[in-house]
Amino acid sequence: MKTQAIFYHAGCPVCVAAEQQIADAIDSARFDVEIVHLGETQSRIGEAESVGVQSVPALVIGGQPFHINFGAAIADLK
Amino acid sequence: MKTQAIFYHAGCPVCVAAEQQIADAIDSARFDVEIVHLGETQSRIGEAESVGVQSVPALVIGGQPFHINFGAAIADLK
Repeated sequence: MKTQAIFYHAGCPVCVAAEQQIADAIDSARFDVEIVHLGETQSRIGEAESVGVQSVPALVIGGQPFHINFGAAIADLK
Repeated sequence: MKTQAIFYHAGCPVCVAAEQQIADAIDSARFDVEIVHLGETQSRIGEAESVGVQSVPALVIGGQPFHINFGAAIADLK
């Protein structure tokens, strides 16, 4: 079974760079990578916060949040 | 030809988590992932700084630095 990985972003330049380099580098044979734009899908902000995401871009793997550089704070997306 | 990815860390708990989740998730069919412990290999601090690494853990892909969460500042490793 593949491990779930969720990449949260907000369309910012820092986010796009992280998506193109980090999210794209993940092994799709072992991981299901979902890309979520929190600016457009605000209904999922709560889900991101619940696993500890404080800013975007962030990659959640196995339920653990990893903040990658800094694009925007979650609070600023609400 | 594989793309080079270098994961810089300093053995800290935040670094270990990032190595086990992020560095390990990278597709080894497309990327050559090198793991560098800057606390033990201080001679490579300059190389990391030259591509923009300011803290560890950090992943450099295609010459671009991505800081993952925050473990320690490069300045504190010198």
